Amino acid sequence: MTGPQFDEKFREQLYSLFQWRRDVRSFRSDLISTETLLELLNVATLAPSVGNSQPWRFVLVEDDRLRESVRENFRRENQAALEDYENEDAQKYARLKLSGLEEAPVHLAVFVDECSKEGKGLGARTMPEVKTYSVILSIHTLWLAARARGIGLGWVSILDPQKIQETLGVPARWKLVGYFCLGYPAEENDVPELERLGWQDRKCIDEFLTIL
Amino acid sequence: MTGPQFDEKFREQLYSLFQWRRDVRSFRSDLISTETLLELLNVATLAPSVGNSQPWRFVLVEDDRLRESVRENFRRENQAALEDYENEDAQKYARLKLSGLEEAPVHLAVFVDECSKEGKGLGARTMPEVKTYSVILSIHTLWLAARARGIGLGWVSILDPQKIQETLGVPARWKLVGYFCLGYPAEENDVPELERLGWQDRKCIDEFLTIL
Repeated sequence: MTGPQFDEKFREQLYSLFQWRRDVRSFRSDLISTETLLELLNVATLAPSVGNSQPWRFVLVEDDRLRESVRENFRRENQAALEDYENEDAQKYARLKLSGLEEAPVHLAVFVDECSKEGKGLGARTMPEVKTYSVILSIHTLWLAARARGIGLGWVSILDPQKIQETLGVPARWKLVGYFCLGYPAEENDVPELERLGWQDRKCIDEFLTIL
Repeated sequence: MTGPQFDEKFREQLYSLFQWRRDVRSFRSDLISTETLLELLNVATLAPSVGNSQPWRFVLVEDDRLRESVRENFRRENQAALEDYENEDAQKYARLKLSGLEEAPVHLAVFVDECSKEGKGLGARTMPEVKTYSVILSIHTLWLAARARGIGLGWVSILDPQKIQETLGVPARWKLVGYFCLGYPAEENDVPELERLGWQDRKCIDEFLTIL
């Protein structure tokens, strides 16, 4: 069996997708159709998972009282984070827009079921964290598929994860991996906002690579 | 600023890439050029990272004594894992080829530097695990870019991670995220081997999705 061969033109577009995929915090009000959303979630399940354990659990949060509770969680933790910075960093941090929770048409919480029986534990004996890593792979797959449809995703990690689990009432054995906003982005850019605003520069591969 | 628009043809190819990306455990002996390898590592750094912290640390393991130590680590842990299974599962497990450590032309260990100063802790206060998640995103980016060049990647998690850190002598604050084999795959398939061999079936999105 021989798989598809990808050509130089595809690779250029793929690299362009990587370059233009952003963490999006400002969304237009346009809705995402249910059909598109289900397509993206289906594509996400093409991600690799350890032992084929498929430990991803997706929760679409549509109820506005639940959404408001998540926003309140974010506001509280973002204020606490701001108080950790001083001087110029504090001023810069206060100016950053770090979530699109207010306006994003789609809220998606993603969990890992670390106790799932699927895969019979294969590959997860000495490094059980690989189940969580599999969920990250599904999120990234969804993220790229979304951007290829012109849809942005924003990862909100400035949250108390335990409170999110309580707010959403998910099974106790599920662990929050991330909370995500999806929608059409208000702007596009090929440079991360934190780099453009002088928070953190991009570094060179030489600084990350060791050869033994 | 307006980014690239991706068309239906690109999306079909992208989904085909997701569908044909495999965890590869059987490699041909063909080498990967240094130029290609550096291209893939560079592309990996286009991945998102929390606070733009870029906490990925890549170690190419070329020394054969180090590689042999990693293989020995795998053999020991794989034998221990086998002993956890009984009856039919044990027979199936024993027949699986779970790593290409013997023949893969490239060994790549990937670590997270959880103490890196880059990003000034932004987004990692309540969920510090997002730094590790950022490294997973870079690995997946490399994985997809590799497959788009016809190169396979295999994730080896059946290892004692602490012993890998000692073997490779990396800084104590680095934590092993994964150990990877890269090379041209001996075969291609659009269905995971664990599904084809009856270890674990693919499940449907309905089993993973909750709407609140």
